[in-house]
Amino acid sequence: MINKIEVNWKGQMLFESVAPEGSVMIDADEKVGGQGKGLRPKAMMLTALAGCTAMDVASLLKKMRAEVDDFKVEVEANLTDEHPKYYDKVKVTYHFFGSDFKKDKIEKSVNLSVERYCGVMEMFRKFSEVTTEIKYIEQ
Amino acid sequence: MINKIEVNWKGQMLFESVAPEGSVMIDADEKVGGQGKGLRPKAMMLTALAGCTAMDVASLLKKMRAEVDDFKVEVEANLTDEHPKYYDKVKVTYHFFGSDFKKDKIEKSVNLSVERYCGVMEMFRKFSEVTTEIKYIEQ
Repeated sequence: MINKIEVNWKGQMLFESVAPEGSVMIDADEKVGGQGKGLRPKAMMLTALAGCTAMDVASLLKKMRAEVDDFKVEVEANLTDEHPKYYDKVKVTYHFFGSDFKKDKIEKSVNLSVERYCGVMEMFRKFSEVTTEIKYIEQ
Repeated sequence: MINKIEVNWKGQMLFESVAPEGSVMIDADEKVGGQGKGLRPKAMMLTALAGCTAMDVASLLKKMRAEVDDFKVEVEANLTDEHPKYYDKVKVTYHFFGSDFKKDKIEKSVNLSVERYCGVMEMFRKFSEVTTEIKYIEQ
């Protein structure tokens, strides 16, 4: 399947990205000539990773009837110092909020995403050392 | 440098991504249980790629005094069929609009981004075959 997007220049370092499902502004930090009016491209890579695995988990938890009150996925990544700068180490933390967690099913959901379904994570593994952690927050 | 983002669940397949410079909604296609209310994670990878190299080019064209009337960067990528689905072939096309193009400087700008500065492209090369093309549109 072919996916297609384009980014259109809006002056200085500001761009509008147009994809079939919506548009988003992209801008650089003020320190490097941007105006801070949009997302940074590299951070979007991390958003793509968190979003991809989070969707898998939402879908799998529902299928396995292991729903939680709430959850979030946090990504922390180390950007190298020299050009071209890339993420060499990435940590993905899954935070589950609720009570009486079905931990076996929750862990199975996360593992299925990490090992089988999440294409963005598969791409990240080609350039980065990816680690994952699950946290439960009783409430 | 550590970069950090998180995505927060908003029910079904909808998530809000929170980064220091702004937030963006992420959602799945209606065919896979989403409501189409946000960007798709995989397409965000392509947006990150286009945005990263486009910013380099905007900055380099200015430095080299080779400004153009307008430009856009288009990314077309082939997503594999089997899980985990990833982009195995990516084509990046730079469209420059204007007249009396300083083509040597424009090409140098693109090449500097592709070969040296664009960290997102460096990451893509680890899992994908990346090709680039420059198009000039006289107006």
